Amino acid sequence: MERKVLITDCADAQGLISKITGVCFNHQLNIIKNSEFVDNQQGRFFMRTELEGEFNDASIITDLNEVLPKTSHVKLVSLGTKKVVIMVTKEAHCLGDILMKAYYGGLDVEIAAIVGNYDNLKPLADKFDIPFHFISHQDLTRLEHEQKMNEVIETYAPDYLVLAKFMRILTPEFVAYYPNRIINIHHSFLPAFIGASPYRQAWERGVKIIGATAHFVNNCLDEGPIIKQDVIHVDHSYSAEDLAKNGRDVEKSVLSKALQLVLNEDVIVYGNKTVIF
Amino acid sequence: MERKVLITDCADAQGLISKITGVCFNHQLNIIKNSEFVDNQQGRFFMRTELEGEFNDASIITDLNEVLPKTSHVKLVSLGTKKVVIMVTKEAHCLGDILMKAYYGGLDVEIAAIVGNYDNLKPLADKFDIPFHFISHQDLTRLEHEQKMNEVIETYAPDYLVLAKFMRILTPEFVAYYPNRIINIHHSFLPAFIGASPYRQAWERGVKIIGATAHFVNNCLDEGPIIKQDVIHVDHSYSAEDLAKNGRDVEKSVLSKALQLVLNEDVIVYGNKTVIF
Amino acid sequence: MERKVLITDCADAQGLISKITGVCFNHQLNIIKNSEFVDNQQGRFFMRTELEGEFNDASIITDLNEVLPKTSHVKLVSLGTKKVVIMVTKEAHCLGDILMKAYYGGLDVEIAAIVGNYDNLKPLADKFDIPFHFISHQDLTRLEHEQKMNEVIETYAPDYLVLAKFMRILTPEFVAYYPNRIINIHHSFLPAFIGASPYRQAWERGVKIIGATAHFVNNCLDEGPIIKQDVIHVDHSYSAEDLAKNGRDVEKSVLSKALQLVLNEDVIVYGNKTVIF
Amino acid sequence: MERKVLITDCADAQGLISKITGVCFNHQLNIIKNSEFVDNQQGRFFMRTELEGEFNDASIITDLNEVLPKTSHVKLVSLGTKKVVIMVTKEAHCLGDILMKAYYGGLDVEIAAIVGNYDNLKPLADKFDIPFHFISHQDLTRLEHEQKMNEVIETYAPDYLVLAKFMRILTPEFVAYYPNRIINIHHSFLPAFIGASPYRQAWERGVKIIGATAHFVNNCLDEGPIIKQDVIHVDHSYSAEDLAKNGRDVEKSVLSKALQLVLNEDVIVYGNKTVIF
Repeated sequence: MERKVLITDCADAQGLISKITGVCFNHQLNIIKNSEFVDNQQGRFFMRTELEGEFNDASIITDLNEVLPKTSHVKLVSLGTKKVVIMVTKEAHCLGDILMKAYYGGLDVEIAAIVGNYDNLKPLADKFDIPFHFISHQDLTRLEHEQKMNEVIETYAPDYLVLAKFMRILTPEFVAYYPNRIINIHHSFLPAFIGASPYRQAWERGVKIIGATAHFVNNCLDEGPIIKQDVIHVDHSYSAEDLAKNGRDVEKSVLSKALQLVLNEDVIVYGNKTVIF
Repeated sequence: MERKVLITDCADAQGLISKITGVCFNHQLNIIKNSEFVDNQQGRFFMRTELEGEFNDASIITDLNEVLPKTSHVKLVSLGTKKVVIMVTKEAHCLGDILMKAYYGGLDVEIAAIVGNYDNLKPLADKFDIPFHFISHQDLTRLEHEQKMNEVIETYAPDYLVLAKFMRILTPEFVAYYPNRIINIHHSFLPAFIGASPYRQAWERGVKIIGATAHFVNNCLDEGPIIKQDVIHVDHSYSAEDLAKNGRDVEKSVLSKALQLVLNEDVIVYGNKTVIF
Repeated sequence: MERKVLITDCADAQGLISKITGVCFNHQLNIIKNSEFVDNQQGRFFMRTELEGEFNDASIITDLNEVLPKTSHVKLVSLGTKKVVIMVTKEAHCLGDILMKAYYGGLDVEIAAIVGNYDNLKPLADKFDIPFHFISHQDLTRLEHEQKMNEVIETYAPDYLVLAKFMRILTPEFVAYYPNRIINIHHSFLPAFIGASPYRQAWERGVKIIGATAHFVNNCLDEGPIIKQDVIHVDHSYSAEDLAKNGRDVEKSVLSKALQLVLNEDVIVYGNKTVIF
Repeated sequence: MERKVLITDCADAQGLISKITGVCFNHQLNIIKNSEFVDNQQGRFFMRTELEGEFNDASIITDLNEVLPKTSHVKLVSLGTKKVVIMVTKEAHCLGDILMKAYYGGLDVEIAAIVGNYDNLKPLADKFDIPFHFISHQDLTRLEHEQKMNEVIETYAPDYLVLAKFMRILTPEFVAYYPNRIINIHHSFLPAFIGASPYRQAWERGVKIIGATAHFVNNCLDEGPIIKQDVIHVDHSYSAEDLAKNGRDVEKSVLSKALQLVLNEDVIVYGNKTVIF
């Protein structure tokens, strides 16, 4: 008995749930969990169906396409361990949390490699026997640097890239190579404090809450589809450094939770938004 | 075009979603929103289906019973305005919040009457032209008092009773009269601080969070199915009175949200728990 | 025995706490609560001292000025009931929460009057027997409208103006008339979604949290010193209207808490920030 | 220039702040931060004064004792790195979070050793080159086991013991050996779900929030002074295992924050409560 997730994303129409679950029933698949959402403004239907049984994928997809509207997107994926490459700069907290959860429970993920534009996190990677590739951006154009990194990344064929406080902006070329497959953590509750030094911006503005946002990376800086956000309360006594220090706990927690949602196939991207089941 | 909610609660089996939504499709009903949950340990299936169209209730129920397991509970209810009677003692905040939301948006509810065992909230009821029945418990046994109250309550035929800080314990007889139809707010995050003076208990214990719990009333004090809970952070500087004062905001917010869930047919009670869709 | 609050705001120096509390001791005042904060970057010292005893205000201030640096700001204020005028447009929830708390406990405040640029909240004001002044902005310039409102407001000599969802931008002239005495609630976690229709902006951006910000009004739209912020979690299923509906609870809670802090003399404004004791 | 914290805990009296800060001023110490609290019900005064300068500890204490009431407790401690021994059973998440923060920023602490009654966390300790002492409780009485552990622990002379999911009850004898120096994390928002299997208890009760509590250990199980608590929202779809899995993030976050407060001398224990500055 295998377990898979069926993701349906199509124009809304009457009878969709009945038709889709009917196909599952005909294939003698047991529905473990079913979640649906209709965006009434755009007339779009989304469904995540967690299934158990013996799967004949091609036949299921064929049967689904027969009952669904023309332009439907259907995806039938296994819930097994996914493979990621993590990209870092200098900060350890997000990487450390993912490592702990990958090795001691909490995230069903294989960390294939870590790529850093500085080398100071190599000892942490070594502790967990994960290949660490130090690829400095020094003396390279942005495209050259990305090309060097991608040559390494590609050899691991990752399902997702996780930017665990990777502090460089990616070019549209690189992003296009991994569409909706790059997960970033931004250290503010977007869209507040887009860009550099959000904690300093927050301190200067005198806010009483700070936060973190995990999102898919698209071509516009800090503007990709948001997966998860959380905040903490702060007060006047926090310096910009205190904000950064306390923000780290939110950053790592938000990134790990977003990664878990993505790995569990709970996330559908549409337009610049996400449906999270 | 009408809007109704179909609640299904039955033994789990293969094909249930397909069969139920198939019946809806055959009746040309549009599914606005569909939520399901399976309790795997107890093998129980729950579904809430929000429907739009022309309803032939009897025919729909008949068709559903044909495809569902023997002991299924099926409920098809309109999403129109429900009627409640509110019971109070002396505190105004929960009552005030419900009144404001009933009159200015936030709760789709008709407040048929208010029953108080003290009369100090009558002026508040008068402001909104709602009948206030002062029924003192003085010199009455618990059963006599309840009987007097229920004579009044019955005349309004309410869908639900809301205990908005009604500070007396109800007898099993009274509770049995309104099964899963009495909503109470308890001023602690249950099961902590069951019984009297939870804020004083919290202060004595030196807790760093306090909370509130909205639940259906059953025969065991403070042990009915929980609908909604929330908390706030407190510190050593709060006296027991400060805890009570700050707790009021959580109490009113939790009770109003629980009431909204119940009115919207988002709540299924099973055993001593709730499924909240 | 009276209770007053001494607010000290001056350049930082050694011995300030000792000197200030020494003056209080010499005047045989009992310190109920003492809170201090030093902004090390700006070398600025802030202290709030809650005192009990017999006060000779002039003599205390004289003694303090002798021991404090030259440019110190010292304020000795009673903790008695303050007077406010509330300004509204069409929405009732913030006004309703303040009314309930003013009349039934939670805010020690006298609501002298309500001024609205629409008249639909007059019935709510009437319920609590509070003068409601309907002053339409129709056919008036912004300055003319403000002048008409201020003629009324001035007659009440309020300590503070509370903008309880007053949806018009105030001119620098009006703001200058009430420096750090106008409290506004903005329906987003500032600085996200400055300006009009923040809930629609939030919906379009696909955020997973929404919030509210209470702040003093200054000349720059939505950029005054922040007093209080809070957020709630939302998801893809919320329409812009759902965001607005659910946001109302945060708005009213944040505004009431900010007002309570201000009334309790817990807030010091400096630059574009606040110290909240 | 050194930095130290002065903790004063004494009967309340007039002029205490002035007298204490006066002594600091006379010793030419700069007050970085001053926090005070008076428990009016018990007439008890608490103050935490963070100081910078050249310290003559004996002389300062002598001067303080001259101005303070007879039974005062005065403590002048350095803010330097503290030493802890961590005790564990099988779960890695709390230990991992403390390790990451001790090595990569967030906690100013020296982890002298880890003691486990199982050996499965030895590899994690090895990664960070920290001595791991596997001391099984098998075939030993509780007292014998504790004695064996304490023989090891004592050699490190730790400032605090941290129970990072150490799942055995400690005897009063052991606890008395480290008064207010043992920090435990309990996996519920105490006092709810005292004792074994709190997540299972929570699941059976059908609660909508779960939490974690960090507290000092005293003789009564789960009843010591609470340092920090936090919660997360859950729903009907969480199994007891899901509750445990999601609770781990709160447990580790609460324990780390409590430890940080203790290390920073922000915590005063009095009776069965804490004052947290």
